[in-house]
Amino acid sequence: MFQVASYETYEDGQEIFKEGTYGDWIYLIDEGAVEIFKTVDDQKVVVGVLPEGEILGELAYIAKIPRTASARAVGHTVIGIIDRNFFDQEFNKLSADFQKMIKMVAVRLKNATETICRSKINAD
Amino acid sequence: MFQVASYETYEDGQEIFKEGTYGDWIYLIDEGAVEIFKTVDDQKVVVGVLPEGEILGELAYIAKIPRTASARAVGHTVIGIIDRNFFDQEFNKLSADFQKMIKMVAVRLKNATETICRSKINAD
Repeated sequence: MFQVASYETYEDGQEIFKEGTYGDWIYLIDEGAVEIFKTVDDQKVVVGVLPEGEILGELAYIAKIPRTASARAVGHTVIGIIDRNFFDQEFNKLSADFQKMIKMVAVRLKNATETICRSKINAD
Repeated sequence: MFQVASYETYEDGQEIFKEGTYGDWIYLIDEGAVEIFKTVDDQKVVVGVLPEGEILGELAYIAKIPRTASARAVGHTVIGIIDRNFFDQEFNKLSADFQKMIKMVAVRLKNATETICRSKINAD
């Protein structure tokens, strides 16, 4: 469904992007699956495994923040890189209010994910 | 910062909206604070208390889903109702892809909040 500019292939365990780095491409899982994980207090915490059809990397794009988690391929995985020109044009046309609203949602998701990861560590 | 169409005043404890109901107005906290809470397994779980300047109700608007939590005033609270005509025009102009992206973020925030609420109950 998403307009994809190009495709990349990853093998099991290969890193797609790393938490804390700068980069704001948005990816679509075309084939395979992607594990999203964070490092909290030096411990790896899995946020979830996204299946085919899901997108990743959208928080950094929307909120203009560093990658909030790391992503790695689970098995042989094909990732579509979503056409950014198209998204940028749309994003830049949005009013400051609308941009602020979707950024707030993105930041709330980032915070909620951190809360979940911390509680997972504390439960261990 | 947000364009407000009208204002409503709530006294301490008054309900602004209720989880599960249909309604997609977006609110801005102009004065006071708002408690966001969910009912999980018949127990009230507080998601958080939003201060002045924060928005609420945006998930139902973005994802076109029922209210994902209840909201009530904490102390004397003034709520601005964000001008929907303006937001609707913007939302409807977005491509299906872009709409899908922000809906995915909203649904992920809904799911993350549910996970947090469930873990709070289990911790009791």
